Amino acid sequence: MNQSNPSKGADPTSIGQAMYRLIEDLYPICRSITGNGLRETLRSVQGQIPLELHEVPTGTKVFDWTVPKEWNIRDAYVKNSRGERVIDFQESNLHVVNYSVPVRGRVSLAELKEHLFTLPGHPDWVPYRTSYYKEDWGFCLSQRQLDSLNESEYEVVIDSSLESGHLTYGECYLPGELTDEILISCHCCHPSLCNDNLSGIALATFLAKHLAGLSLRYSYRFLFIPGTIGAITWLALNEEELHRIKHGLVLTGLGDAGKLHYKRSRRGNAVVDVAVAHVLKHSGRDFELMDFTPYGYDERQFCSPGINLAVGRLSRTPHGTFPEYHTSADNLDFVHPERLAEAFATCLEVLSVLENNATYLNTNPKCEPQLGKRGLYRRVGGPADAGVSEMALLWVLNLSDGAHSLLDIAERSGLRFDAVRKACEALREHGLLEQRGDESSPVAATAAGPAIKVGASRGRGPGAHRATGSTWKRDR
Amino acid sequence: MNQSNPSKGADPTSIGQAMYRLIEDLYPICRSITGNGLRETLRSVQGQIPLELHEVPTGTKVFDWTVPKEWNIRDAYVKNSRGERVIDFQESNLHVVNYSVPVRGRVSLAELKEHLFTLPGHPDWVPYRTSYYKEDWGFCLSQRQLDSLNESEYEVVIDSSLESGHLTYGECYLPGELTDEILISCHCCHPSLCNDNLSGIALATFLAKHLAGLSLRYSYRFLFIPGTIGAITWLALNEEELHRIKHGLVLTGLGDAGKLHYKRSRRGNAVVDVAVAHVLKHSGRDFELMDFTPYGYDERQFCSPGINLAVGRLSRTPHGTFPEYHTSADNLDFVHPERLAEAFATCLEVLSVLENNATYLNTNPKCEPQLGKRGLYRRVGGPADAGVSEMALLWVLNLSDGAHSLLDIAERSGLRFDAVRKACEALREHGLLEQRGDESSPVAATAAGPAIKVGASRGRGPGAHRATGSTWKRDR
Amino acid sequence: MNQSNPSKGADPTSIGQAMYRLIEDLYPICRSITGNGLRETLRSVQGQIPLELHEVPTGTKVFDWTVPKEWNIRDAYVKNSRGERVIDFQESNLHVVNYSVPVRGRVSLAELKEHLFTLPGHPDWVPYRTSYYKEDWGFCLSQRQLDSLNESEYEVVIDSSLESGHLTYGECYLPGELTDEILISCHCCHPSLCNDNLSGIALATFLAKHLAGLSLRYSYRFLFIPGTIGAITWLALNEEELHRIKHGLVLTGLGDAGKLHYKRSRRGNAVVDVAVAHVLKHSGRDFELMDFTPYGYDERQFCSPGINLAVGRLSRTPHGTFPEYHTSADNLDFVHPERLAEAFATCLEVLSVLENNATYLNTNPKCEPQLGKRGLYRRVGGPADAGVSEMALLWVLNLSDGAHSLLDIAERSGLRFDAVRKACEALREHGLLEQRGDESSPVAATAAGPAIKVGASRGRGPGAHRATGSTWKRDR
Repeated sequence: MNQSNPSKGADPTSIGQAMYRLIEDLYPICRSITGNGLRETLRSVQGQIPLELHEVPTGTKVFDWTVPKEWNIRDAYVKNSRGERVIDFQESNLHVVNYSVPVRGRVSLAELKEHLFTLPGHPDWVPYRTSYYKEDWGFCLSQRQLDSLNESEYEVVIDSSLESGHLTYGECYLPGELTDEILISCHCCHPSLCNDNLSGIALATFLAKHLAGLSLRYSYRFLFIPGTIGAITWLALNEEELHRIKHGLVLTGLGDAGKLHYKRSRRGNAVVDVAVAHVLKHSGRDFELMDFTPYGYDERQFCSPGINLAVGRLSRTPHGTFPEYHTSADNLDFVHPERLAEAFATCLEVLSVLENNATYLNTNPKCEPQLGKRGLYRRVGGPADAGVSEMALLWVLNLSDGAHSLLDIAERSGLRFDAVRKACEALREHGLLEQRGDESSPVAATAAGPAIKVGASRGRGPGAHRATGSTWKRDR
Repeated sequence: MNQSNPSKGADPTSIGQAMYRLIEDLYPICRSITGNGLRETLRSVQGQIPLELHEVPTGTKVFDWTVPKEWNIRDAYVKNSRGERVIDFQESNLHVVNYSVPVRGRVSLAELKEHLFTLPGHPDWVPYRTSYYKEDWGFCLSQRQLDSLNESEYEVVIDSSLESGHLTYGECYLPGELTDEILISCHCCHPSLCNDNLSGIALATFLAKHLAGLSLRYSYRFLFIPGTIGAITWLALNEEELHRIKHGLVLTGLGDAGKLHYKRSRRGNAVVDVAVAHVLKHSGRDFELMDFTPYGYDERQFCSPGINLAVGRLSRTPHGTFPEYHTSADNLDFVHPERLAEAFATCLEVLSVLENNATYLNTNPKCEPQLGKRGLYRRVGGPADAGVSEMALLWVLNLSDGAHSLLDIAERSGLRFDAVRKACEALREHGLLEQRGDESSPVAATAAGPAIKVGASRGRGPGAHRATGSTWKRDR
Repeated sequence: MNQSNPSKGADPTSIGQAMYRLIEDLYPICRSITGNGLRETLRSVQGQIPLELHEVPTGTKVFDWTVPKEWNIRDAYVKNSRGERVIDFQESNLHVVNYSVPVRGRVSLAELKEHLFTLPGHPDWVPYRTSYYKEDWGFCLSQRQLDSLNESEYEVVIDSSLESGHLTYGECYLPGELTDEILISCHCCHPSLCNDNLSGIALATFLAKHLAGLSLRYSYRFLFIPGTIGAITWLALNEEELHRIKHGLVLTGLGDAGKLHYKRSRRGNAVVDVAVAHVLKHSGRDFELMDFTPYGYDERQFCSPGINLAVGRLSRTPHGTFPEYHTSADNLDFVHPERLAEAFATCLEVLSVLENNATYLNTNPKCEPQLGKRGLYRRVGGPADAGVSEMALLWVLNLSDGAHSLLDIAERSGLRFDAVRKACEALREHGLLEQRGDESSPVAATAAGPAIKVGASRGRGPGAHRATGSTWKRDR
């Protein structure tokens, strides 16, 4: 196994700023779980990375679910008797309940109020509401706006459509040395919400952009999908190939000022769980580890009992525990380039652990090998090999019995993974370690393309889903 | 599996009062490990529940032990030279060392004192003493009584008998849907002691009385037995059928003002151990969990290494840790109807967990099923199905992989068992859960009687034990 | 299994003084990993115990290492221009870097300083330095000595030799009832250092001397070896017989005023690990338990992954954590007879646990046996058998199911091992316990000599090592 350095050439600070700019670009778009806002978002991401767009037709059966009708919206407003727009979709797409059916008519204030949603506790904020699976309509507004409405007749217009169409998602596959994959997933179905949605999209985009330029051990698959139904759709269409996914992360809510939170996979002690905990523990910053619960983002689907992938979730302040969650206050002021940059660097560190983790065998397991004669040991007055910790050498030798990976050794010894990895390299150079024979096999020479045949139909009828947008391209 | 509700129709408050009245009735009786006091007690219990009395002859070999001679007592006293009863069995049966051999004679104070027992630290209390396995005699009295005795000759009479006879115990079997059993055991060999003895008898009696009116999943077996030798006798005579006992509780010392204490079974992590801990943890009241030790009540026998049943012990302040233990101060003032009522309600809650605990399989394990289309999910502005927690639905779905029972799910999620059970019911109604195939099988149609053939001899010679008293009757 | 009492006849106080006297005798000798100082030390130990000396030729391959040249030194000094010895080996052998090659010449102060080592933080102390595997020379001195040297020419003489010869080690084998062995190892390669080296030698010597007079269950093997290369050499030459070693201790640094520290074996939960922890926990004195790390003394070799013996390390203040470590301050004032005595007594207690630990089967596992009829139980007014705890009887009976050793029972119950052992003896006398059939088998009648054929060559060429000194003799 060669060294793999996912952090190579990374400049988190400037990437943090680039992520923020992408968030600014995507912020105004009215995304939903289907429709043109979602497509526009994915096309914007295509400007950064080789993203393949998939279109799955309305009505496609995906496990227990059915791909819903496609929703599109052009305009929406409530006008008072003087013809003034008192609630206006053009001002903020949060003003319309997402997936509202078309409406056009005149209603009294009392009738209107049955379709209005506010946040009395935060009278200046507009809530974010959806009605995906019940055909309904509504408007969201601030409590102050609501309080200023007087008794009169109002004109209500929602110029939307809810018709047969497609569910769109994006997929970026970066082949590595192995067909084994690391999955990175983010949801992209929320309209003008920055932390919950756009921070994850930006981080996944720039991780993919950065990794696309490197030679890595694992293959990487980035998913940009509408929440819940997108994850279910992707899992249903790719069920046969899920065995390739060895580790995964759901990325969301990474731009706010809170500390990093890692939610473990359902397995609880998967390598990715240990790896993220290791990186956070050695980060010198405050963090939180949370056990898996079946509530949250798409880890719910990746960690459903019949799927049960080793996928955890990295976020900052967990959803639902900050007041700005699902409101207009989750805006461009709520996310910060330096926080995005820190999340980016943390992800690269985690990937570096996953890329370099392996189990080795001490080739000289009976007593210590003589490190001194190989120049690996302190001598009188002299230091050991620059950068290689003597303690790390001894730990790697002692625990490389086939039962401990480098990550296990780092955890047991309390040393940083990187110190353990460097010791491993030094020992391998001197023939004192060899890799265990049963590790993952490399990509076969003929398998040049993506390991999962994205875009191919899987016996769900012709045209069950078709690839649109960019064909697969590796820009390196 | 149908729902089973052991708490159905229970009114703990009035049952607490009824338990206290039973304790009042039984308090004066001079019980022992054999004899008429024990029989009278069991006949009194027969007034409440269908209790079968068994008589095991003196000399019967029961494992390493032998059923002892039967002890009976009519009167006992010590008279001073003026013919006054200075120690009088008629005043309190604690005054005689239990199992004292017959005595009739005149002794000096010095000779008498060799047979007297007091509690100098509690000069007004009378201790409780026994001499089951060494033929001896004695009197117990308060230190003040002893101090008032002057040098003179005393007439000593113990009008008892210790002869071949029987050891009596009571058994109440309530057949359920399954032949699998839950065992409830209490000891009934202590004379006028309320908490240590009568509280357990009263609780077991009223649990049996309450459950006899219900349709339950498990069969129940209530044992009213003399301590140690009764448990050993019952186990020896029923060894072949012990495999039916899936869970069990020894009940004792449940009427005092202390908090509930649960002592785990020898297994330490049996379902009953987890169930009681779960109920106590969610009770909102202070409690204590104790690991198994080989000292205590009849859990010593049920949890001996060759028996090793999943039987724990529920009590309040543990024996030996309160000064009133084994003294005349363990009287009617020491136990309280409301404490008995709380213990009763706690037992029903534990039984409810055991009755309803099972392992299910999510029939739709790949991703979450669409709860919304089944009316099981919150909608915009609307609540979920009344009384069914959304989190409980998600936990049950996520962990119903065949490896987690409902109790496991409750423990893992931190939810109350009842919330988990309700979610399970809702999911089963919608076909989203099915019971695992290998659960306990129901009683065969022909097996209408008790699963353990009580009263039948087991090759230990004819008449090894015979059933007396009530024949089996279910009053429902 | 008969009782075995390693503490029999031990008088720790007088043995503590004898250990101190041995340390005084050995203190002036200039030991190293080879050479006459080492031989002289081992011959001195032969005055106390039947120690067999082994000589392994320079150049012998031992795993990844090679037995080095033999080093001997007669004199060494630095003389100033007035012919005064300003640094003098005759004053303290620490003044010469151990394994210094021969030197004879005149150097300037600047040149000399390149070969001088001091401890600026402790200006009166002389450091201890070695250069085993790089041919070099040097002197160690106090900072004050160094500061007093003025610019001038110095005469440097190291009258040493580094030539083909032997590595010497000592081995004392005490056959017991079983061929299974307990290994006790100490290093003896340090020159005038009392705690680091001599305390371990003294303790191992007097343990062997004491045990040689007793009838014990295990056979004992005491190793007196140069650190690292000695352990590697012994392991390489005895690899075939290592399976006999069931438990082991490395002894070092046991004379200082600090509390006892036990470093667990690599296995972490070996019987010796539990036994030492048990003894220390019940000692009433402060102590420390440490997990295994691959740094330290010869436990590094005994616990290398391909050897992995159940060998822990007993010491006081760990090496490297006290300033006197590897300096002239580790002198006769730094070690104390009473501390050595306490370490001696602790070792005997540990050996008593190991000697007497075994797994028994309750011969009467169904319910408790009737202890009363065997006189093993409290009766009215009477105590139980003198010295046998009733609780210990119940614990031993309850847990003697073949899965718990006596040590396990002691740990589970919180009782001292000795109380558990006494209960076991009482129960065995009454036939209530029997030993499990698969315990270690005794020494075959014909195998009268040492189980490991020490001194025999093992196909490493003729004369690979030869035994010198005392032939094997048991002085009992």
